[in-house]
Order: sequence, then C-alpha cells, then structure tokens
Amino acid sequence: MLQKDRQAAFDFARYIDERRARLEASLESFLPPAEPLKLYEAMRYSVLSGGKRLRAVLAMASAEAVQADESLEGEDPVELVLPLCCAIEMVHAMSLIHDDLPCLDNDDLRRGKPTNHKVFGEAMALLAGDGLLMMASEVLLSRTSKKVSPQALLDVALELCRATGPSGMVGGQVLDMEFTGAAGSGTVDEAVVSAIHKSKTGALIRFSLWSGGRLLGASAKQLESLSRLGEIVGLAFQITDDLLDITGSAESLGKTPGKDQASNKATWISVFGEDGARKKLKEMEAEGIQLIKDSSLDNPVSPTLTSLLQYSINREK
Amino acid sequence: MLQKDRQAAFDFARYIDERRARLEASLESFLPPAEPLKLYEAMRYSVLSGGKRLRAVLAMASAEAVQADESLEGEDPVELVLPLCCAIEMVHAMSLIHDDLPCLDNDDLRRGKPTNHKVFGEAMALLAGDGLLMMASEVLLSRTSKKVSPQALLDVALELCRATGPSGMVGGQVLDMEFTGAAGSGTVDEAVVSAIHKSKTGALIRFSLWSGGRLLGASAKQLESLSRLGEIVGLAFQITDDLLDITGSAESLGKTPGKDQASNKATWISVFGEDGARKKLKEMEAEGIQLIKDSSLDNPVSPTLTSLLQYSINREK
Repeated sequence: MLQKDRQAAFDFARYIDERRARLEASLESFLPPAEPLKLYEAMRYSVLSGGKRLRAVLAMASAEAVQADESLEGEDPVELVLPLCCAIEMVHAMSLIHDDLPCLDNDDLRRGKPTNHKVFGEAMALLAGDGLLMMASEVLLSRTSKKVSPQALLDVALELCRATGPSGMVGGQVLDMEFTGAAGSGTVDEAVVSAIHKSKTGALIRFSLWSGGRLLGASAKQLESLSRLGEIVGLAFQITDDLLDITGSAESLGKTPGKDQASNKATWISVFGEDGARKKLKEMEAEGIQLIKDSSLDNPVSPTLTSLLQYSINREK
Repeated sequence: MLQKDRQAAFDFARYIDERRARLEASLESFLPPAEPLKLYEAMRYSVLSGGKRLRAVLAMASAEAVQADESLEGEDPVELVLPLCCAIEMVHAMSLIHDDLPCLDNDDLRRGKPTNHKVFGEAMALLAGDGLLMMASEVLLSRTSKKVSPQALLDVALELCRATGPSGMVGGQVLDMEFTGAAGSGTVDEAVVSAIHKSKTGALIRFSLWSGGRLLGASAKQLESLSRLGEIVGLAFQITDDLLDITGSAESLGKTPGKDQASNKATWISVFGEDGARKKLKEMEAEGIQLIKDSSLDNPVSPTLTSLLQYSINREK
C-alpha cells in the first residue's frame, strides 16, 4: 500500500467517536449527581452537553504517540489519561459558562442549548464554573492511576493551572474583553490578536497535547514537539473559529454567529481579512504536518495527530 | 513559673503580627504585577488588602506544632508552608470577590474598601476570582520547597481542591444562597446551618490546620487531631461572624452589618438565638482547648493554637 492509501484507510470518524464515547463515560462517572444537587445539575448540564471534545482527544492522541515510561508498559495509554482528559474538558466547560455570563459575552445559546445562566440563573452559573475549576484538578489528582509517577502528575497539575490561570486562559479572556470594540481602530495588530489567541484558546490546547505525553513520561524532545504542535493546532483552531463566525449558521454552530464583527472583536480576520486568515490556516496546516513527520509522532497506519490537526481546521462547528 | 503565668507571658499580638508580615511579603513576591496588568491589579487589590489572615496563620501554627519528616530537620516550618499559606489566602480572597458580586451578596464594602467589582467592574472581578483560584494551586505547586515529599504535596494540592470545590467552599456558597430568605420559615434547623457552616467557611479553615501538618509529614494521629481542631475553629469562627453581624459596627467590621437578619440568612443565631450562639461558642472553646491539651499540640511556653482558637472567638472584626 502506498503511504497515501494507508492514510485514507484510517477511519478517523470511527476513531474520534470511540474516543469521545470513552471520555463521556468517564465524565459521567467522575461527576455523578451529588449534594448540593442544583450545583451538580448545573455543572453536569455544561460538562455533559457534548461538544467536539477536541482537547480531550488531543491529549489521548499524544499519550498514544509517545514512548511511555517502562513502569507503564502494557498499560492502555488512553485509560491512563482519562482523568486528565476529563479535567481538561471541565476547565473548558467552565470557561464557556463564565464567558457566556451577562457581564462578559452575554450569550443565550451554546451548543444549540440555552446557556448555563439562562437555565440556572447567574449566581448558580458563576458557582458552577468555580466548582468545575476545582473539580478539574480534583479529578486529575485523585483519579489518575498510582502507576503514573508522582513527579509527572505534579508537573501536569501545575501546567494545568498555568494554562488555565492569569497567564493562560483567564488572562486571554481579559485581553479579549479589553480589545473588544477596538478592531479597526488601529490598536489591534497581529501582536494583539496573537497574544489573545495564544492565551485564550491556545494555552489549553497546547496543554492538552503536552500533558498527554508528560503524564506518560515522554522524552524532553517529544514534549517539545508536542508543545509546538499544540501551538499550531491552537492557533489554527482559533482562526477557524473566527472564520466560522462569519460563514457558519446558528444551526450548525449551536451558537449565535456574526457576533465578532458586530462587537468589533479583535480576531485574525479583523487584522488580515478572510483571505489572509485562510492563507495563514494553510501555512499552519503545512507546518503542523511537517512537524508531525519530522518528529515521527504519527503511526503511518493511523495518522491520528495529522487527522486531528486537519479536523480542527476543516470542521464546520 | 506557673502554667498560667507562662501562658500570660506569650505575646500573641507580636506572634500574629510577625506571621502576618511574613505572609504579606510572600504574597507580594508570589503575585507581582504582570500582564494583563488590569487583571493582576484586580487580583492584587483583593489579596493584598489585609484581613485577619487567620487561615494562613493557622497553617503556620500547625506546621510548627507537628513533628516534621526527618528529611525536613533543621528547616524553618513557617518558611516551608509559606506558599501553602499564600494559596489559602488567594482562595479565600477569591471567595470574597465572587461572593460580593451583584448576582450573589451584592456588597459594596469589604474590609473598609469598595468591593472588587465596584472598583474594576463585574467582568474583571469575575475573572480576577477565576485567576486567583488557579494562581492558588500554581503557587502551592511551583513554590513549595523540593525538600517536601512529592506525595505530601500531591495530598495537600488535592485536599485544597476538595476544601474549595463543590463539596467544600463553593458547595457552601450554594447552600447559603439556597437557604437565604428561609430563616424563620421552619425549614432551617441545626442540620442545615451546620451543613452551610461546615462547607462554606469550615472546609477551608479545617484544611488550613490539616495541611500545615500534612505538608511537613505529621503522623496520622496528629493529622486527625488537627482536622478535628479545624472543625472546631471553623464552626467557632462562623458563629462569631454571625454574632458580629448583629453586634458589630460597619467601622469595626469593614463591611455592612445587619445583612444576615435583613435577608433572613440561615445563621446559627436564626436557629438558636443570640444566647444559644454564645453558649455554643463556649462549648466549642472548651472542646478545642481540651483537644489541644490531649494531643499535646501546643508548646506550653507559646500556646499558639489555643491563642488562635480564642482569637477566632473573641475578635471584634
């Protein structure tokens, strides 16, 4: 079989469905209903409402891509990172809940359903977000197999905080807010948009790829490649998001499109236009594919990381 | 010297001032201004605004009270727990920021200053709280001395999440909210008020006493005593808070008094009245003193834990 045919034979749809199903089952088992019931209901509403689960699947794929610690030989890499993947999705869900609140984006619709505060009220949505932020680290720290090295777990727990906190996702939300309304005013340039993207969405996506490898004991060289790939996927994902905001429909997106332009958000498109964004995406795709090849991260029979990179660009929601 | 005179000779005011000064210096060094500047300004505004620092000092005192791991011999126990203490105070500051938001308590005044959202706006206050929650664990995980055992650090990081999350502080805020307005309606009894207190304030105070010991490698027996003492101090602290709400002035409290009764909050007083609350406080104090004595947690020359228990009851703010 030629390389091209081998790749074509890889059933990506089946791969991602199977990974998502394992993630959903773990989320359900790590976040069962409990007291206070209403709080858990609100947390579960957002965490268990589907979504692409791209971040979690990236962490699984990177765990499968690396050479694991000897002590983990014979273990299923996906099983080992399931608590990590749940933690990542909880943090992501939390960011959407707080982002949708009236004092920030004031969104009514998310994944085709009313946003958390529309169902549970602002106070409960606020607290559900806070709760998920803590549950994420709790699940990572309490549910990760004792076979994983304590130092690897400590490193991953620390980087999760960094990716999520003021120098990562939360910092990005602040930048996003500060520059909303400024697009077209001359203050928004590539440096500004890059800084927003790198922290707001990029940090958690980069963490997803890095952490799957780190937890399993990947080499420094592999971690460096995964980290750089994470930056590429993160930026490509966000530029695609910006494009979908102008080309997608509420039905396919599950949220209100056209909001970026209406609020003069600092997006890649606001600086480089639609064509500039599409050109950048092609460059990112090529760079990512080359990196995966150079670092031998993909198994030729099942090029999962390449497929995930392309999925993050070619998706329609 | 008689036991009584020895105790009188212990200069508690000087002790707590010195501990607070070390904490403030660490907070300043672990949370310097950074980008995004406005976010850090908002986080620093609430974290560095003083306060009693009871939780941090409790963690220091418990670290000093226990027999540390051999590997930590010769180390200063207070120095070893400073990152932990900063984490605790960051979590506490975060809970006040979110609690004061319009969708929750809608408070304008905290520690005699305008609340965070009054100064920085609701969105920034929301994100400053989120940022502090992550910074807390980040500081704990990245700044704790490498001499501390990785397993002790993992245990403490996990329990911080539990004390803070849905089964702790955040869960308590939900219960508090759900039962606000219900006092006097017959649905609020001792079980309800205990559950609120135990989670909303009790969990973090209990964690403070437990974690100072755990980080230094205290024995299971000592940890059990510290944990129970934490429950006692936590409940005593909250009942005192409830009493101060009816007896204190805005000037001494630095916040608006009388709000509990005005909003029919589920407090100890709403169930047992002022006399019942004072009686319970006396019982808690006696139980705590006995426990400290039975567990030999206090040095007779400097009875720090006894003094902190009494301080949490006799304080005027």
